[in-house]
Amino acid sequence: MNNFKFYSPTYFVFGKDTEKQVGEYVHKFGGSRVLIHYGGGSVVKSGLLERVKSALDDDGIYYVTLGGVKPNPTSGLVYKGIELCRKEKIDFVLAVGGGSVIDSSKAIALGTLYEGDFWDFYEDKSRIANATALPVGTILTIAAAGSEGSSDSVITKEEGMLKRATGGDCLRPKFSILNPALTQTLPAYQTACGATDIMAHVFERYFTNTENVETTDRICEALLMAMIHETPKVIKTPDDYEARANIMWAGMVAHNDICGVGREQDWNSHWLEHEISALTDCAHGAGLAVIMPAWMEYVYRHDIMRFCKVAVRVWGCPMDFDNPESTAKAGIAAFRAFLKSIGMPTTMQELGADEKDIPYLVKTLGLNGGKTGGFVHLDEKDAENIYKLALRK
Amino acid sequence: MNNFKFYSPTYFVFGKDTEKQVGEYVHKFGGSRVLIHYGGGSVVKSGLLERVKSALDDDGIYYVTLGGVKPNPTSGLVYKGIELCRKEKIDFVLAVGGGSVIDSSKAIALGTLYEGDFWDFYEDKSRIANATALPVGTILTIAAAGSEGSSDSVITKEEGMLKRATGGDCLRPKFSILNPALTQTLPAYQTACGATDIMAHVFERYFTNTENVETTDRICEALLMAMIHETPKVIKTPDDYEARANIMWAGMVAHNDICGVGREQDWNSHWLEHEISALTDCAHGAGLAVIMPAWMEYVYRHDIMRFCKVAVRVWGCPMDFDNPESTAKAGIAAFRAFLKSIGMPTTMQELGADEKDIPYLVKTLGLNGGKTGGFVHLDEKDAENIYKLALRK
Repeated sequence: MNNFKFYSPTYFVFGKDTEKQVGEYVHKFGGSRVLIHYGGGSVVKSGLLERVKSALDDDGIYYVTLGGVKPNPTSGLVYKGIELCRKEKIDFVLAVGGGSVIDSSKAIALGTLYEGDFWDFYEDKSRIANATALPVGTILTIAAAGSEGSSDSVITKEEGMLKRATGGDCLRPKFSILNPALTQTLPAYQTACGATDIMAHVFERYFTNTENVETTDRICEALLMAMIHETPKVIKTPDDYEARANIMWAGMVAHNDICGVGREQDWNSHWLEHEISALTDCAHGAGLAVIMPAWMEYVYRHDIMRFCKVAVRVWGCPMDFDNPESTAKAGIAAFRAFLKSIGMPTTMQELGADEKDIPYLVKTLGLNGGKTGGFVHLDEKDAENIYKLALRK
Repeated sequence: MNNFKFYSPTYFVFGKDTEKQVGEYVHKFGGSRVLIHYGGGSVVKSGLLERVKSALDDDGIYYVTLGGVKPNPTSGLVYKGIELCRKEKIDFVLAVGGGSVIDSSKAIALGTLYEGDFWDFYEDKSRIANATALPVGTILTIAAAGSEGSSDSVITKEEGMLKRATGGDCLRPKFSILNPALTQTLPAYQTACGATDIMAHVFERYFTNTENVETTDRICEALLMAMIHETPKVIKTPDDYEARANIMWAGMVAHNDICGVGREQDWNSHWLEHEISALTDCAHGAGLAVIMPAWMEYVYRHDIMRFCKVAVRVWGCPMDFDNPESTAKAGIAAFRAFLKSIGMPTTMQELGADEKDIPYLVKTLGLNGGKTGGFVHLDEKDAENIYKLALRK
């Protein structure tokens, strides 16, 4: 096990009707002038935005609103948010929505207190470890990205459609309100995308070259098994509160890094996927459903025993002691079959990309002759091969 | 799943040589005048205390020391610590040791800022939710109690040997330095006691009447399986750093409540044990090794399927579909056999108690005709029966 630091200071408030307490938690973490940041449609239509406003009104908290966050949130709205925060002397950013809204909120919180261009942090031109940000709180409406408990933010720059991430302790939300009932109205497709993203956050940590990490291995496997057990329930019965609750908590644990500490992590599937969703505007989870099994097929020979481990422990495949490779492959097949069963695409074409897009995808990865990933280091040729494995045959 | 709040803001610094960074973290969390609180022997003999002092010296941090914490820490030393903190205008309490030292440090941190008797909090005469405490940091030397990440403190009052607990967010350590190498010198018996305590923290949460808690069930099972895998390694090879590291992280995760949120918890084994260690001064983990299997035997009929679940998933027992009760019992037997295999006692007599002590133990539980526990509510007669089941036959 490697040395590590782990810091997850977010105050989680979980359960039915918990969004009513938002004013109390804004106060608790020092907010008095709030930017409510959100997406659009569902938060307005469901009445959640009005409920949040009226909860803040009840506590005498001033607020302004900024809607319009889209999936794969872009820098344009972030600049707008920063300007608004400065003009209105905002001291707290409240994200009401899913991972995109939270990521956009984190970027605004970071950029408001920074004299330069917030994008500097996303291109590693400025060190986030030395940065400060406005406090962020969240009211989560989609179990997926784990941004409600993570230190990360992913933003796409319109020019060049560059999707880049940054991460630092200053971006950890002060509080996150997790009411599973708010996710019950989410359509099956987005629900499945979210579940896929959660499982991907675990897999990116699970596939490691670090030895002797049994405790975090077991926690990773626990989360995967819980997701396999609960996801089909909500695909079948969208208003299954209990299954929604299990998924929502798994989504946080999967990405606040408690299951990934002390081990080299991979993240190649995320990197490969980011270019797909930047190009096709597909949901991040849908892109992962296509890329992850392809990535697994490409790399499993690197550590057949680890792929057997997940096949046996998580997917319940019998171990073939005479031919471990077949067990490893059976696990990958089980994962792909699971993704199909919850309605996920498993080919690039279903996302609106094709073989002709691959050179562009590879180029935008920005590898420039370098390599990426922790488990197996991939170069541009490897990336091309994985994208090809993700094509419909 | 029940509504819940989860807050674990401790900054964990994990790995080799991390104690050298203690000055940096005392500074980070606002300390300038430190009480170093510790036990005795090993911390001094190993040179750890001197290393900690010199690290604080290097950072120009003032400190005073107070040693002498014993297992099952008592109120006498807490009063002494409070007096010292006030006299020296201490603004940070640094615990160097195991759970007893950390619990004593938390009590001192709490009592220093409280005008009344700190014991009020342990008898629920004063509400800890409204209290403040000095910041506490820890350098952990024993993987066991989980106090390094928890909100709890257990202290024994000398008069009457009353062992009582309190818990609140103000008691969560600001930082905890976890260097597995510091635990390598721990003798096998104490190591096994610690492992038993960690497993007990999981079981107390696992046995619940709350339905639909698959995610936390799976995390609980993950921790138990990791402990079953790693503990025999360190009993055999005390300086197995990697196994020590897995156990140390499992010990934190087992008790910061991430595996226990949203579910009614039990804690009867802890309550029943506290009176045993208060009476016999046995190690808490040894007491748990005696009480937990006895408690399981007494209550398993309350939910045979849950006992089958742990038997099959954690202990790898085959499910007997014709006779589930036999599977439930096989799981309990496997747990007892595991405890024996790591050198733990499994009878009251081995702890120095006997049948004649049972009336006293039952009386000091302080039930006064009431009931205790979350999974099965126990009265005094039940407690007596469980103590009897823990006797050597």
